[in-house]
Amino acid sequence: MAFFLSGSAETISLLLEMLLVFASAKLLGEISERIGQPAVVGELIAGVVIGPSVLGWVKPNEFLSVFSELGVLFLLFQVGLELKDFKLMRVGWDALAIAILGVVVPLILGRQIMIAVGNPGVEASFVGAAMVATSVGITAKVLADMGLLTQRASKLILAAAIIDDVLGLIVLAVVSSLAKGSVNYLELGITAVISTAFTVIVAQYGTRAFERIVPRVDSATKNSKSQFFLSILLMFGLSILASRAGVAAIIGAFLAGMALASSVSESTKHETAGVTDFLTPFFLVGIGMRMDLSVFSNPNTLQLCGIIVVAAVVSKLIGCGLGALRLGARDAIRVGVGMVPRGEVGMVVAQIGQSIGVIPKDVFAVVVFMSILTTMIAPVLLKLAYRDLMSKERSDGRLSHSEIV
Amino acid sequence: MAFFLSGSAETISLLLEMLLVFASAKLLGEISERIGQPAVVGELIAGVVIGPSVLGWVKPNEFLSVFSELGVLFLLFQVGLELKDFKLMRVGWDALAIAILGVVVPLILGRQIMIAVGNPGVEASFVGAAMVATSVGITAKVLADMGLLTQRASKLILAAAIIDDVLGLIVLAVVSSLAKGSVNYLELGITAVISTAFTVIVAQYGTRAFERIVPRVDSATKNSKSQFFLSILLMFGLSILASRAGVAAIIGAFLAGMALASSVSESTKHETAGVTDFLTPFFLVGIGMRMDLSVFSNPNTLQLCGIIVVAAVVSKLIGCGLGALRLGARDAIRVGVGMVPRGEVGMVVAQIGQSIGVIPKDVFAVVVFMSILTTMIAPVLLKLAYRDLMSKERSDGRLSHSEIV
Repeated sequence: MAFFLSGSAETISLLLEMLLVFASAKLLGEISERIGQPAVVGELIAGVVIGPSVLGWVKPNEFLSVFSELGVLFLLFQVGLELKDFKLMRVGWDALAIAILGVVVPLILGRQIMIAVGNPGVEASFVGAAMVATSVGITAKVLADMGLLTQRASKLILAAAIIDDVLGLIVLAVVSSLAKGSVNYLELGITAVISTAFTVIVAQYGTRAFERIVPRVDSATKNSKSQFFLSILLMFGLSILASRAGVAAIIGAFLAGMALASSVSESTKHETAGVTDFLTPFFLVGIGMRMDLSVFSNPNTLQLCGIIVVAAVVSKLIGCGLGALRLGARDAIRVGVGMVPRGEVGMVVAQIGQSIGVIPKDVFAVVVFMSILTTMIAPVLLKLAYRDLMSKERSDGRLSHSEIV
Repeated sequence: MAFFLSGSAETISLLLEMLLVFASAKLLGEISERIGQPAVVGELIAGVVIGPSVLGWVKPNEFLSVFSELGVLFLLFQVGLELKDFKLMRVGWDALAIAILGVVVPLILGRQIMIAVGNPGVEASFVGAAMVATSVGITAKVLADMGLLTQRASKLILAAAIIDDVLGLIVLAVVSSLAKGSVNYLELGITAVISTAFTVIVAQYGTRAFERIVPRVDSATKNSKSQFFLSILLMFGLSILASRAGVAAIIGAFLAGMALASSVSESTKHETAGVTDFLTPFFLVGIGMRMDLSVFSNPNTLQLCGIIVVAAVVSKLIGCGLGALRLGARDAIRVGVGMVPRGEVGMVVAQIGQSIGVIPKDVFAVVVFMSILTTMIAPVLLKLAYRDLMSKERSDGRLSHSEIV
């Protein structure tokens, strides 16, 4: 009998998928930690294993996508919440240098490689664009898990990733416009100004505003959870505003977290951490699930994969590393490594390229492979790059509040 | 420019809907509390206001439905987590009497009213069946918010609601089978046995099992959040198993919470409360959103609405009250009132009736109206019925952990 007074048949099958995603993420995350790697790597691999490429237990669907997108929003929000005395603008110029070089080098290298192996210019530019944008969520999660969010290099990575995101959107807009025939530079300029203004204003005045607003809300409402509700509302509100202003929604979520970091209680942060810990596995597994291992069946594609992955890692290391060289070799390497993961961002660029018809199926598979592999490599490299800082800073800036409570 | 590197256009519109649901729930919940009513009433009304019947800002859709269903699962899970020393089986016989009388009286009364106003027997039986099942989530939320979960009457309500749910499923199965032509009593009997066995076994042995399992998981894993992850996994697992065993998924979630109540830390409960507080508004607003005020346009339908709502309230009060009379008049009234809300359960029964063609459109609207109105009336009545207990017990058994942390 299939009567579910509460919980429709679809919900039950979704619950089963959610259980599989969650269980596999936690199991492989644990194994990953036991062999000395960040849990994130295991959670990404969990997606590959249960996804269509290996076991085929769970396929990407629109519900899991929604949980995945909410997962990365809450992840960035939580990272923002951990950054109590982080003045984004203070690291502005260094971050700008890192971001610009981190955009230019991968874009040119990616484009040249694709042209060298005989692809048309528009297609090559799109692959270059997909190699531009960093998926900051992965790096942030790894640094938060290791308690290293408040390190100088970590803050630079976060700031540079925000600028990188704005630049990445502009690059994508230019490349898409070129593919369609013409570029509207005026519209592009306006978007660039609005998105920059939004980010700068919220980063600069958000914290101060909420240091006034939060105590007022506390005293005005009867509800002991009003801080939590206010946090959720601001997270949604700034995510929406950000995307309207031409910035990625995750940047809005991150700025919302930063704005609240010094005004909400530890108890509130612990409660939002519950939502984040619940949703993040859907983001990580969701990325792994999109791995298409069929690229291995064609030797040419496989070769291209190898070249593109190496180029994606090296170009960010060189570009971002050069931008951060002023801070010494160690921090330069940390920053370079931190900007390596392309994650969901590279995949979305590839999807847009495919939808407007400039990226063929095999190149799409290559870009997705590059996005996922850089995302898996980066945490391993990050752990190496931050090794010497880990022992002394184990107790700072971690995502988890379990120990505090 | 509509480029969202992270956050597709659909996600952004979903985020906007989520923001509206969340903001309206918290605003009207706050207003509701200020005029001395439970917040739940305001959150339900928020759904009516932003839904298609009034402002039309948000329409029910499949994504919001998923969040709503997850919301009620986590709500029941959290309620279970709060019940530390609750032996479900100890109140078994009283609960059984309450549940049986609380099923028989509404079923017969609802059926007789519908026949009296000239409806065919099958249709009348379906309306009766829709009047049977209690939506325990609403009552549990109100009692938890008022810190009254651990009262004797509250525990009886929870236990009776579980039995009521099993009985409601059987009634629905019989009525549906009758509508389709034949009843398979053997299949029905097997389902009844399996569902009862599942509930009894988990309720009886769950707590003891996890008092052994949780410390082992704690010491075996490297992750400080393993209790939280285990909780989420058990919640999903038992929800799925429950629905496979013929019980509603929410009962599985509730049993999962109860099984963990005495073994997981307060910090873990606080973290799951974050997920619950995030998702519950989607459940409450989702119910209100389905209110169809067009029933008011037809005087005959309106009259029937009035009669059915009164019958729905009175029949549970009398049925469950009689079952609980042994405990004294006050607790009998509390139990009766606590079983009044029909919430999502009544609506699902009506939907099934409509899908197999025995419930016409106007009767469907009446049942939905009854489900929502009983859900709004019950919290107000509950607050009155528990008035004398509220002052002394304000600090016990509340859903919120903000004060503990």
